[in-house]
Amino acid sequence: MKIAIAQVNTIIGDIEYNKALILKYINNAKEKGCDIVCFPELTITGYPPCDLLYNPRFKKCCEDALDDIAKKVHGIDVLLGTAIRENQSGRLMNCVVFLRDNSLYGIFPKTNLCRYVYFDEERYFIEGNIPVYITEYKGIKMGIIIGEIEEQSLLGNMSAQCETDIILNICAIPYYYGREIERIEQLTDLAKSVKKPIVFVNMVGGNNELVFDGGSLVINAKGEVCGKAPSFEETLLIWNIDDVGNMDIEKEDISYLYKGLVLGLRDYCNKSRLDGVVLGLSGGVDSALAACIATEAVGNKNVLAISNPSMYTSQSSSNDAYRLADNLHIDYRCIPIDTLFTSYLKIFNEDGSPMGDIAEENIQARIRGNLWMFISNREGKLLISASNKSELYVGYTTMYGDMCGGLAILSDIYKGQVYELCQFINRKAEIIPRSIITKPPSAELSPDQRDEDSLPPYSILDKVLYMYLENGLFEEEIIDMGYDKDMVYNIINMVNKSEYKRYQAALPIRVSKGWFKRARCMPIVHGFR
Amino acid sequence: MKIAIAQVNTIIGDIEYNKALILKYINNAKEKGCDIVCFPELTITGYPPCDLLYNPRFKKCCEDALDDIAKKVHGIDVLLGTAIRENQSGRLMNCVVFLRDNSLYGIFPKTNLCRYVYFDEERYFIEGNIPVYITEYKGIKMGIIIGEIEEQSLLGNMSAQCETDIILNICAIPYYYGREIERIEQLTDLAKSVKKPIVFVNMVGGNNELVFDGGSLVINAKGEVCGKAPSFEETLLIWNIDDVGNMDIEKEDISYLYKGLVLGLRDYCNKSRLDGVVLGLSGGVDSALAACIATEAVGNKNVLAISNPSMYTSQSSSNDAYRLADNLHIDYRCIPIDTLFTSYLKIFNEDGSPMGDIAEENIQARIRGNLWMFISNREGKLLISASNKSELYVGYTTMYGDMCGGLAILSDIYKGQVYELCQFINRKAEIIPRSIITKPPSAELSPDQRDEDSLPPYSILDKVLYMYLENGLFEEEIIDMGYDKDMVYNIINMVNKSEYKRYQAALPIRVSKGWFKRARCMPIVHGFR
Repeated sequence: MKIAIAQVNTIIGDIEYNKALILKYINNAKEKGCDIVCFPELTITGYPPCDLLYNPRFKKCCEDALDDIAKKVHGIDVLLGTAIRENQSGRLMNCVVFLRDNSLYGIFPKTNLCRYVYFDEERYFIEGNIPVYITEYKGIKMGIIIGEIEEQSLLGNMSAQCETDIILNICAIPYYYGREIERIEQLTDLAKSVKKPIVFVNMVGGNNELVFDGGSLVINAKGEVCGKAPSFEETLLIWNIDDVGNMDIEKEDISYLYKGLVLGLRDYCNKSRLDGVVLGLSGGVDSALAACIATEAVGNKNVLAISNPSMYTSQSSSNDAYRLADNLHIDYRCIPIDTLFTSYLKIFNEDGSPMGDIAEENIQARIRGNLWMFISNREGKLLISASNKSELYVGYTTMYGDMCGGLAILSDIYKGQVYELCQFINRKAEIIPRSIITKPPSAELSPDQRDEDSLPPYSILDKVLYMYLENGLFEEEIIDMGYDKDMVYNIINMVNKSEYKRYQAALPIRVSKGWFKRARCMPIVHGFR
Repeated sequence: MKIAIAQVNTIIGDIEYNKALILKYINNAKEKGCDIVCFPELTITGYPPCDLLYNPRFKKCCEDALDDIAKKVHGIDVLLGTAIRENQSGRLMNCVVFLRDNSLYGIFPKTNLCRYVYFDEERYFIEGNIPVYITEYKGIKMGIIIGEIEEQSLLGNMSAQCETDIILNICAIPYYYGREIERIEQLTDLAKSVKKPIVFVNMVGGNNELVFDGGSLVINAKGEVCGKAPSFEETLLIWNIDDVGNMDIEKEDISYLYKGLVLGLRDYCNKSRLDGVVLGLSGGVDSALAACIATEAVGNKNVLAISNPSMYTSQSSSNDAYRLADNLHIDYRCIPIDTLFTSYLKIFNEDGSPMGDIAEENIQARIRGNLWMFISNREGKLLISASNKSELYVGYTTMYGDMCGGLAILSDIYKGQVYELCQFINRKAEIIPRSIITKPPSAELSPDQRDEDSLPPYSILDKVLYMYLENGLFEEEIIDMGYDKDMVYNIINMVNKSEYKRYQAALPIRVSKGWFKRARCMPIVHGFR
């Protein structure tokens, strides 16, 4: 028996697009002699559909699309995720449907609904009551489990509960850096423990702040990977169930993080029907990385880099920005900001010369933001922000300045990861000029400014932030690990005081674990010190 | 027996402040001969404490404060809301504690935890299992219910379930316009149905986007109001249980909405320790209302109004802005933007003269935003945004322009409500110049521009938006009520297309019902048309 996994990239709410995609993959699998093709969770709706699920017209469109698809299924079985209203109550279910012989052969509503921070299933769906649905084909019993298995605490009693030959795990699980390693470990452990092969079906694509890596898997009963779809790519993975040999797979590394960010940006543009990207290029490392990711995501012809030197911009930064744009073959414009900056100074300072306060630092960033937004508005390009997570969390960013943009493609990665990704990009050739990577980080908003004048070194800052944000540790626990007390309190205090900035931050591409595990939910105004 | 209701205004996380406040009210009640004083839900922590509840140090501070308070309680009983760790499991409970004779006499953990959009109790607390706690004092049985009763579906079986003489309902429930009318109706119905008096204890104050109105109530067994604390004010309400006579109370009207917005802004400033407010004054009705609210909230000496006329600003708008500032006795500065606007035009337009596209409209708003933020940064004042809900939801606003600000004090009220509030402010004297109210709405970003050139009349727009956002109706249902099909689709389409703007909008003061009932959760990028 041949099982096909359709690791597809749907568009939330674009039912016609999704329907055509599904039919294409059904035909493709059929042509390749597959017996069954499995799609991810909520494929017809796109994922996560959120409040579209409240819209009666949306629900009807999804059901009509399912009818259309079912009518065309012949000579192959199909397992397909979608939302369906229960006949009597009209209440919605998150289902996998089983299509066979031009008809809807079975409906399996998801059991163990989750309250993901990005999609609260309990808000929309009623729950099924069967954790594993059994369906048989050619004498092989398939046990279907919808959603992430770790959350279903099935691990212990899986083998006892269900007499299946294969477990089909149908999911829509977003990526974070490190998740594939975790997933493979969990699924291989599970397969070993229940002594059954597991077919893990996942969707791929960027949807709003989420990136789905796909990475669909087949694991044999010994807990070895015997099939894997490429990560971050739409694909059809075919597995012959007699083929249970171990295969070598590459281990998740920094390239995954890169691909995730690229896909997140690419799909944001594609699915918003935006033609290109504009970004500020300062000569610093963050915007350099953002430019590389943008070029990979939408192509060099669709990226416009704007350099906005001021009186505080070093010549080397200007040169570096230009050289990078040249290396990437992207459009480059230089718009100096000193005339505008001086106009603002003339309004606020008696003699029109700088006083050097925070208002003047910020206005420079905001003039740049205005210039970028002007271009974004006039030329219909998406402005992307290059703020990184480290600076965003300590508030070392300017609202309406460098924080401007529709998408903040680096705002969920730490400064250290920015450097790692730059090294990765330069692994074969010096695309990002070395001096961009080696110079000390600076916002260049005042004379000879360096980030480390205001912040702890990023190497330490990142670690403290990581423990706080990703691992959920608190000040005292971090101090107990040997970090300086005042520094730790100072960092966490900066995080708390800048909550108001992040409230208005651009949409990030989520790639770190903390938010997925327990999204931060802090009051903006509070008196706890 | 005399029962005191301490309708207090706490600060989230400021345990020392809250402790002192609680002790002050306990003493106050004791001096007035009360037998018992009741505080709202989670008074020690402040409400809603959100993720502060994860912090071990925070939990310890709250428990220490409770110990300190308990030790000082003598000669009066105290019912006080706070968070406490269960002894054995260490898991947190949302409790009302009963303090008597210098000690912790009883702990009542909340049953029926709620998943409010602003505070997901299930995220933090374990649940109690007793819906009504009975405690006796001087032969009178008091049944304590924590949290909003309507959500506890106790209405039916209350009288059967509990043999009480009085029901004490201890809450922390935020305000929305119309909520007091609903509340009084619900509680009087409940009292009638169970034939018991109900004492409703609520907190007061602005906390982040929430405004708590207080409005604590005593309702007799016949369902008549026999005591009511003033709304939007910290107060001690004392009720002698023999005093069950009906009293006249004022009915919630537009003045409540005004007071709610004032308190929301005042407390945001106070609790953030911000000294004053800055806002743009365009001569239009939104910023006029915002200036009046700001003046009421923080005092005329702490409000700075900035007028930023451009070549498209009518003389009447400039005059009106000036007259309003004069009427309010607030600081007023005029900073024309044409020089800056021209500098931007010179950069982007060949001959430096306007082309009249959306980029040019937006840059004017953004120059203003930059000027306001400069002042905010330099002078340490809170910039408030005057965007209203109608324009924010159809996207008729400029990101990083008029949307700039730490708090958007009108962004949860419709344009029609803006006018109503202006009329309310002018009820005794023409504080807001009549011409501000009577002129047709215009953004004044291009020659002779009027909002109705781009939008349906606000009188219709508001109704469609209200049905969609507050009542949860969809396009077809709204059209069925007699509205033009194309217009309705057009409006809802504008709402969906501007999701990305609202993602970055300033914190609103929440005063409309829709968000409380079912907060909007829509994908920014989706293909449903």
